[in-house]
Amino acid sequence: MPSSPHTETHFEASATVRDVVIGMSDGLTVPFALAAGLTGTMTATSKLVVIAGLAEIAAGSIAMGLGGYLAARTDRDHYQSERQREIRETVELPEKETEEVADVFRAYGMAENDLRPVVKAICADQKRWVDFMMRFELGFEEPDPKRARNSAVTIALSYILGGMVPLSSYMLVDSLQTALKVSVVVTLAALFVFGYVKGHLTGITPLRGGLQTVIIGGLASAAAFGLARWIS
Amino acid sequence: MPSSPHTETHFEASATVRDVVIGMSDGLTVPFALAAGLTGTMTATSKLVVIAGLAEIAAGSIAMGLGGYLAARTDRDHYQSERQREIRETVELPEKETEEVADVFRAYGMAENDLRPVVKAICADQKRWVDFMMRFELGFEEPDPKRARNSAVTIALSYILGGMVPLSSYMLVDSLQTALKVSVVVTLAALFVFGYVKGHLTGITPLRGGLQTVIIGGLASAAAFGLARWIS
Repeated sequence: MPSSPHTETHFEASATVRDVVIGMSDGLTVPFALAAGLTGTMTATSKLVVIAGLAEIAAGSIAMGLGGYLAARTDRDHYQSERQREIRETVELPEKETEEVADVFRAYGMAENDLRPVVKAICADQKRWVDFMMRFELGFEEPDPKRARNSAVTIALSYILGGMVPLSSYMLVDSLQTALKVSVVVTLAALFVFGYVKGHLTGITPLRGGLQTVIIGGLASAAAFGLARWIS
Repeated sequence: MPSSPHTETHFEASATVRDVVIGMSDGLTVPFALAAGLTGTMTATSKLVVIAGLAEIAAGSIAMGLGGYLAARTDRDHYQSERQREIRETVELPEKETEEVADVFRAYGMAENDLRPVVKAICADQKRWVDFMMRFELGFEEPDPKRARNSAVTIALSYILGGMVPLSSYMLVDSLQTALKVSVVVTLAALFVFGYVKGHLTGITPLRGGLQTVIIGGLASAAAFGLARWIS
């Protein structure tokens, strides 16, 4: 069980998995709850529910996808600006930065005599020095440059895919009340499968993961349904 | 300019700021786009737009808030299970784990003679050893135990607050077309202010931050409006 390669793979995969989870958990939940909510109003028709649902999926997938794009871009910009600051500090305040490297090791209880050669080795090369400060003092990982675009596309597609699950029954079934029932059954089942797989991937009990997403979807839909019926 | 305390504060604040940003950017965008989208249909009334909008806000705030709660819980569980694995490995495979500590320093070009005392000091104490592996080999920060609940409440309230901005004009103005115009002007202004402040906090140019959120909100609304009009 080699730990480092395992970890690398784990982090690579988890960026995409996290994006799918972000997009799909909202995509399965919000259009489902909105559609269910609208059937609680007096004037609703299947067509209206489908229009509102598709408008929500368009808005949600664009908002979340572009939001993910900007979040990744902001992370990268933030990493670059902190890195520039560290580079500047190694030039302008080398003694202070050298002591900060030493502080990292002091926190692990190392004796002054033992840590001096380590600190000297790290600070001998500016790139290595800055790399060390970024990772060990500030806790930054260097972001993947392709991350922003991949993140946006993954989140948006997952949202659309998730959103079509609850909406498809309103497209296929004429009676609004029947469509609602089909949508509830199909979507709660999909939420359970999604939560089960997500639980499996993130290391929590799959059954618990499945129940969690079902409860979130159920609560959101019940709140939307109750609110819509109460107002109309 | 003491770097470590600065960084600590920065990370503390950024968890809450990130939650406000997560909730409010979707809250300002999706209900806005949905409401604008519904006015593109033939049969829409102000009342229907308000009902659909409130149902969306209820669904979205619950889904995102609980989603944030679970994400924080999953992070904590994941941290704990990785920590248990590292503790087990220091007991079962101490040589391998010692080498992994050495590998961290080798990556910084340190000579074998220099790194031995460092590695010995770290591995002398199991808690310190595991702490080191968690932070420096695996890149984990220990999560705040109150994070899950705070995160859920912050995201949900930010979503509701954001969502009431575009919706309030449909509540106050009778004519649907006038309400749409007011909503577009008010919400784009709010998106600009939000993006401006967000840009300021995350270190990108405020003006660029403001324009980014306006473009996302505008694109999402235009897509929802176009789609709704095209179907109906």
